[in-house]
Amino acid sequence: MLQVYSGEGFGENTRADATDRCLSEHTRSVKMTDCDGEGAQSPLQLFERLTAQGDQVRTLKTAKADKGEVEAAVQILLQLKVQYKQVTGQEYKAGCPPPENLILTGNSSAAGGATEEDDDVNPWSVTTTNAKGVDYDKLILRFGSSKVDQELVDRIEKVSGQKPHRFLRRGIFFSHRDMHQVLDSYEKHKSFYLYTGRGPSSEAMHVGHLIPFIFTKWLQDVFDIPLVVQLTDDEKFLWKDLSLEQCHRFAVENAKDIIACGFDINKTFIFSDLDYMGSSPQFYRNVVKVQKHVTFNQVKGIFGFTDSDCIGKISFPAIQAAPSFSNSFPQIFGERKDIQCLIPCAIDQDPYFRMTRDVAPRIGYPKPALLHSTFFPALQGAQTKMSASDANSSIFLTDSPKQIKNKVNKHAFSGGKDTVEEHRQFGGNAEVDVSFMYLTFFLEDDEQLEKIRQDYTSGALLTGELKKILIETLQPLIATHQERRKHVTDELVQQFMTPRPLNFNK
Amino acid sequence: MLQVYSGEGFGENTRADATDRCLSEHTRSVKMTDCDGEGAQSPLQLFERLTAQGDQVRTLKTAKADKGEVEAAVQILLQLKVQYKQVTGQEYKAGCPPPENLILTGNSSAAGGATEEDDDVNPWSVTTTNAKGVDYDKLILRFGSSKVDQELVDRIEKVSGQKPHRFLRRGIFFSHRDMHQVLDSYEKHKSFYLYTGRGPSSEAMHVGHLIPFIFTKWLQDVFDIPLVVQLTDDEKFLWKDLSLEQCHRFAVENAKDIIACGFDINKTFIFSDLDYMGSSPQFYRNVVKVQKHVTFNQVKGIFGFTDSDCIGKISFPAIQAAPSFSNSFPQIFGERKDIQCLIPCAIDQDPYFRMTRDVAPRIGYPKPALLHSTFFPALQGAQTKMSASDANSSIFLTDSPKQIKNKVNKHAFSGGKDTVEEHRQFGGNAEVDVSFMYLTFFLEDDEQLEKIRQDYTSGALLTGELKKILIETLQPLIATHQERRKHVTDELVQQFMTPRPLNFNK
Repeated sequence: MLQVYSGEGFGENTRADATDRCLSEHTRSVKMTDCDGEGAQSPLQLFERLTAQGDQVRTLKTAKADKGEVEAAVQILLQLKVQYKQVTGQEYKAGCPPPENLILTGNSSAAGGATEEDDDVNPWSVTTTNAKGVDYDKLILRFGSSKVDQELVDRIEKVSGQKPHRFLRRGIFFSHRDMHQVLDSYEKHKSFYLYTGRGPSSEAMHVGHLIPFIFTKWLQDVFDIPLVVQLTDDEKFLWKDLSLEQCHRFAVENAKDIIACGFDINKTFIFSDLDYMGSSPQFYRNVVKVQKHVTFNQVKGIFGFTDSDCIGKISFPAIQAAPSFSNSFPQIFGERKDIQCLIPCAIDQDPYFRMTRDVAPRIGYPKPALLHSTFFPALQGAQTKMSASDANSSIFLTDSPKQIKNKVNKHAFSGGKDTVEEHRQFGGNAEVDVSFMYLTFFLEDDEQLEKIRQDYTSGALLTGELKKILIETLQPLIATHQERRKHVTDELVQQFMTPRPLNFNK
Repeated sequence: MLQVYSGEGFGENTRADATDRCLSEHTRSVKMTDCDGEGAQSPLQLFERLTAQGDQVRTLKTAKADKGEVEAAVQILLQLKVQYKQVTGQEYKAGCPPPENLILTGNSSAAGGATEEDDDVNPWSVTTTNAKGVDYDKLILRFGSSKVDQELVDRIEKVSGQKPHRFLRRGIFFSHRDMHQVLDSYEKHKSFYLYTGRGPSSEAMHVGHLIPFIFTKWLQDVFDIPLVVQLTDDEKFLWKDLSLEQCHRFAVENAKDIIACGFDINKTFIFSDLDYMGSSPQFYRNVVKVQKHVTFNQVKGIFGFTDSDCIGKISFPAIQAAPSFSNSFPQIFGERKDIQCLIPCAIDQDPYFRMTRDVAPRIGYPKPALLHSTFFPALQGAQTKMSASDANSSIFLTDSPKQIKNKVNKHAFSGGKDTVEEHRQFGGNAEVDVSFMYLTFFLEDDEQLEKIRQDYTSGALLTGELKKILIETLQPLIATHQERRKHVTDELVQQFMTPRPLNFNK
């Protein structure tokens, strides 16, 4: 059984998140089950001390502080952990406040299949204690999806006639549902369409947010197919302390960054839920159809909703489901309801689409296929949370070349050794090194990447040198993005966001 | 505590219903808590036998069968009731299958305020064991509304400058919320608008369905104000085994009957939820605002939803709430959100608007005011259900003069005595006589009505004569309606149902 906790006020869950699509705080209050007295420590107080101490250790390590100082801090951390276990009867897990109750996530049929050491992945929270990040092979088993193996990558190459995108070559899009079926049909000249999205919780987008869009653009190009992009401003309104106007403004601002990824205006429709729900009777009809076929029991099991959640949250999953059905977009597909949908998204969004795939046949629609990505790590490491409110947790799309340089040098968690001598002698650990992880996302050249890995592991490449390569990779990438975004006018956004016919063959 | 049960498949709850707006079956399965074996009777089997026997008794009485025959049937009924109490531990209540669980309706703060003898009134089921119908004074106390007293009726007359409608003179609109406030503002030249609605569960509408519309038209005329009419076709889709297309078609058909009531096209907007949600971003914004401020716990308390209900039902109350806010209709009111709404409706709809009034100030809107009507009785009596699927339970708007005559003569429950001699001697009971009740709804002349009551009570007026007066009242009323409906063209419906500006002063 997995535990998901995000108490109001704690907020800062350990999290490796790629899309931030649905990063939202459940507003569950955490019960004090134990001692609350003066001298004694409540589970919550202990948890907070532990979190602070963990931050302290990380800060010291990042700052390459004196070894003795680091070790002393680690000792305090370990003592607190022992104390925590005595009080709560369970292991401390960074980012997970003491439990109020247990919530099952993942495949509901696989109840009990996950152990306490498992990672926790759902649309609102992703936690892991492993510095390498989430164990994705385990996730495939738990979610019941399929691995993107070499055979599938080869097949995509064959069918598309293009070299597979680096995200496919490197296992960043690592899991799928029904991709072979999509390719089977495509080979028989039956087309499909793409659907992805974003939860516009702020204006600020970071490089991690681009991952699904970079990949989706590639899919659009090589398969020559339409794309719909859902901006769930209604969801953000329901989950966050934001006004409708704010959420809608964020949606439009985020649309600019999405457009700057280079999508084809003749094949791309971007929509705000708040706008599109009120301008497409067919979309609302599909929302209601899904809502009729999903019970509160089901969303409780899938998303961990409680009786204290507002009815908007409870019914929202149907709104994220509806774009999976082609007749939600009559301006593009007419009345056709049989056009297959392919959804590229981060794996934390899978619960929405497991639900959608469960409902689809019952309302006479094909199940959407999926391609799942791994999470994009925070600069501080794959087991910490990337937060739009913490400017140092990632590289933002608005960062200057200097900011990029400083952030990478100062904050990117290093797998290198403490001294040059040690590093030369023992080599670095690329598997936990965030700079290297970022390069796997953004450096196109496979051979160069492999050489960097080998040199870093052997000790030939120093941390500073590795960081320099990353800086020189990110600076032009971000600069180009900023240049492209500058040319995205309000009129262009308006065009992309207007329901209209798209180029669609068959 | 009140009990509300409507098991799937039972359907036929004892019910006196005026609007049928939300007549829907909860699809809760009824647990067999007791013996299910061959010889033994399960609570459910007993319940079904009791229901059948009750029908038998009523049929015999209606048919004025031999006294001995009636008494024998009543004896069987009483024996079954004793048996039922032994098996279930509680009194048999017509229309209420053996309970699965208890659901509180009415004021949630008044938990425990209602006793087992109380009537049960909620949007999906209205039950009473009293032949006179629901005890409305008790309902006012339980719901926390205010009585429409002579002072209010006089005030409406003064402010409107018109003789009060017979529904006001006769206590048919018997309860209200904030009517004095509406009149205060109106006197200061601050206008308001009307909102009412209907759940289009079938094409067939009966005379009872007209009550809120007849009264609303009167209000529109005397106050010269806009009206919005919501057809909750989405709700019917969620609750009933109907397709979206069927529900939408029923909405359009029902709109024709509503238009035939004579509403002013320059001041009336009729909308299907399925259409309007998809054509008004501002309406959806208000729906989401309400959805953010109501929890599952709240709708559970107010409407008795369970974890097995679909998420569409759970979030639907927000859709019935949204038209209470003027900026849901920017085509009529622009961006103004401060225009007071007055909702004339049957009292069973009050739970929706208690919820709405609770939310309104929290989202910066004025609370809607309400005028509540009593229920329109079935021909078979005020404690039985009027059903669109039972042609004999009411007078339908499509009935011919001959059908009207036959139905009234054959099915209208009589408060008269069994023989002319007895009737002349002891007089009839107008309070339980359905023909007399119908006349209170449809006979305009107060003096004539009072004379009928006196003559019937004294025995001067026989049941047959009373029924004749009703027949002669209903026949021209229905004929006129049919004539008007004939002239409602598809184009006219289209016009009424198109979002557009209306005549609205200030």
